[in-house]
Amino acid sequence: MQIMIILGIDPGTRITGFGVIKHHPHRPIALDYGCIRPPAKASSSKRYLIIFEAIETLIETHKPEALSVESQFMHRNAQSAMKLGMAKAMAILAAERKGIPIFEYAPKKAKKAVVGHGSASKEQVQKMIQTLLHLSEPPTPEDAADALALALCHAHSLKLVHV
Amino acid sequence: MQIMIILGIDPGTRITGFGVIKHHPHRPIALDYGCIRPPAKASSSKRYLIIFEAIETLIETHKPEALSVESQFMHRNAQSAMKLGMAKAMAILAAERKGIPIFEYAPKKAKKAVVGHGSASKEQVQKMIQTLLHLSEPPTPEDAADALALALCHAHSLKLVHV
Repeated sequence: MQIMIILGIDPGTRITGFGVIKHHPHRPIALDYGCIRPPAKASSSKRYLIIFEAIETLIETHKPEALSVESQFMHRNAQSAMKLGMAKAMAILAAERKGIPIFEYAPKKAKKAVVGHGSASKEQVQKMIQTLLHLSEPPTPEDAADALALALCHAHSLKLVHV
Repeated sequence: MQIMIILGIDPGTRITGFGVIKHHPHRPIALDYGCIRPPAKASSSKRYLIIFEAIETLIETHKPEALSVESQFMHRNAQSAMKLGMAKAMAILAAERKGIPIFEYAPKKAKKAVVGHGSASKEQVQKMIQTLLHLSEPPTPEDAADALALALCHAHSLKLVHV
């Protein structure tokens, strides 16, 4: 059975969630998860650099074989969409520079892979991820849970994980 | 009188214009201009990497002291805005990694700095840039002209160039 390390990224300008999972023969395990929070007082360009360098470090540390990232966002407006695109670009570039294959999943698809339906609440996603990854408590913040959901969604799409 | 090299970038997913100007005591000169066109058949992540590496090369070659980039786009929709944000992020990150100060100008402001009013046509911008930079012909494509306009706009805002 294939063993694979997958990095999930839930990009955002204020908080970027990350989650690294490793598929083991009997169950996936969480290697690392959390979030990148650039200082609010830093310039926007500095904040993007911090996100980029943090993702580079995650890649160097965990050597993932795939990046799983959101394909679309809940756009409030075009200006927000542009900023989110810039944060997402940090993950895409960091992975592409290392030759890591990139996979994109819609938020609903990630929720469906984890909970079973695309309209699951944040709490349902967090609770189900806790169960699937045998965590002692639901992963927080929600951005980290969403990143783990993206990683699990990719594993699911490869039939690595039956959820 | 201050001499300064300024890199202007007009980001786009298909075509990213660039223009490098150097302010001389009596007039600005164009050191380089043109556009980055990643192959259409390349993956989107590969195209962003190509844009990033091309801008890195421009920075290493010309050692600009400022990056001037568009602050906003003519958004068709949120999806387009996100893609444009991702292209813009390549310029922002390349400059920030080298510690180059980043300045943003609205397209109308760049046009106004070059032509005198914000509703100038593409042709007017190209013609005026030809005159200001003493080029043998109007800069093409329009993306390169827009990038030179952004660089001139920054020079203008510093009172380096009286246009």
